[in-house]
Amino acid sequence: MPKLSIVKIGGKVIDDLQSLSEFLTGFSLLPSPKILVHGGGASATKLAEQMGIPVQMVEGRRITDEKMLKVVVMVYAGWVNKQVVAMLQARKDDALGLSGADFNLIRSAKRPDQPINYGFVGDVKQVNTKKLRKLLEEDIVPVVAPITHDGAGNLLNTNADTIATELAIALSKQYDVRLGYCFEKSGVLSDPENENSVLKNLASSHYQQLKEAGNIHSGMIPKLDNAYRAVEAGVEVVKVMHHSDIHRWQPDVPPEKINFGTTLMIDE
Amino acid sequence: MPKLSIVKIGGKVIDDLQSLSEFLTGFSLLPSPKILVHGGGASATKLAEQMGIPVQMVEGRRITDEKMLKVVVMVYAGWVNKQVVAMLQARKDDALGLSGADFNLIRSAKRPDQPINYGFVGDVKQVNTKKLRKLLEEDIVPVVAPITHDGAGNLLNTNADTIATELAIALSKQYDVRLGYCFEKSGVLSDPENENSVLKNLASSHYQQLKEAGNIHSGMIPKLDNAYRAVEAGVEVVKVMHHSDIHRWQPDVPPEKINFGTTLMIDE
Repeated sequence: MPKLSIVKIGGKVIDDLQSLSEFLTGFSLLPSPKILVHGGGASATKLAEQMGIPVQMVEGRRITDEKMLKVVVMVYAGWVNKQVVAMLQARKDDALGLSGADFNLIRSAKRPDQPINYGFVGDVKQVNTKKLRKLLEEDIVPVVAPITHDGAGNLLNTNADTIATELAIALSKQYDVRLGYCFEKSGVLSDPENENSVLKNLASSHYQQLKEAGNIHSGMIPKLDNAYRAVEAGVEVVKVMHHSDIHRWQPDVPPEKINFGTTLMIDE
Repeated sequence: MPKLSIVKIGGKVIDDLQSLSEFLTGFSLLPSPKILVHGGGASATKLAEQMGIPVQMVEGRRITDEKMLKVVVMVYAGWVNKQVVAMLQARKDDALGLSGADFNLIRSAKRPDQPINYGFVGDVKQVNTKKLRKLLEEDIVPVVAPITHDGAGNLLNTNADTIATELAIALSKQYDVRLGYCFEKSGVLSDPENENSVLKNLASSHYQQLKEAGNIHSGMIPKLDNAYRAVEAGVEVVKVMHHSDIHRWQPDVPPEKINFGTTLMIDE
């Protein structure tokens, strides 16, 4: 099967033009086929504050009311997406910015109101792999914003880590997918206070132990739970890594020889 | 040559969900190939006000400083574009939202600072007709936001009427293009106070007379100057029409039998 790199970028790197620029230079060196999935960083919260819209969070997740939906669509599918596309075009990647509504790429269903009403949040139901494959075969670089649609004309907010996972799972039937979640840390830390405690590999049983011991907590838990779904579904390589390591990520290097970030594994 | 409809929608219809919904239902009845170009309505000005960004206008044209660029990209390429795409997908048009940066679709150059510094405004230099033709042949409906890029990583604001004109001119070598500028009026009025004074045809010499007599003024002048550029460049049919007439615009009807809106013509 052909190789495919799916890279998710999020966090502070999105908000800082210099870091974003460096990251995109690294990403542009990665050979095609490849897909970039981005979050929105802190810009959506900042814009909501500027507009006087109260930000409601439950268990680390944003409640998306009607006004907040407009904010996230503007920031994620508008400013961040188009800025990234323009910067990749300048680096000779033929980037195409996409939300889940474009090409009917990602169909979702509004999450049930119970037990928590998250508002206009969509759970992924279907990925248009046929269209994605066509784009990839034409050497186009899809840049995917974490906005989906329900097929009835409504946009929905969907977590960017989830989008990356769902794309990786859907495409793993046709590609050897390497999925990298990039963020500000060098990988999964066995001691959250020590940046040098990066784990080279993390088996799911060890992850459960670290979680129970409280060594992995808050935002890392939904991120890793998400990532293990991809491992379990057969995605070839799943890594959690620092965004500045992207230039070192060459798809021809065998997984066991990648000496940065954390490779997630399931127990034999 | 195959027929192609290019429709530009702008003004208040963008801001009113009911009108927008009706317009898109009419547009979805138009057979492919077709392209929709949209403006942003009053939303950008409204958002700028909410964010406390002063709106500067010179001769009816907005000055786009750095903050305003972010606002127009968010509103035009983000909220308006994705909402339209989702609504067209719900109407079974396979819509794809695009800015000029996506696919390197529309390359522009920042307008010179003299005599007026408009800020981050781009004058169109090149349209990627090859890519557009490919999309149209695949029955995809491009939905184009009035944002372009300079190829060096910078987004620029470009007037939506101009985008529609430039796309029509660029594609007129390969298609019999019918270009319709839709707005709140039923066409060009010979008497701006009288909604029933719609001209069926308007020759360029007559337009000059009406302009000199003051019967056509303000925002209509750049719109029509723009539209006549398309007529002069050989675009088959150029119309100014009410957005609610879109459902009556069938490409198989000969131009002389279209009994709504104003058809622009050049003198023999």
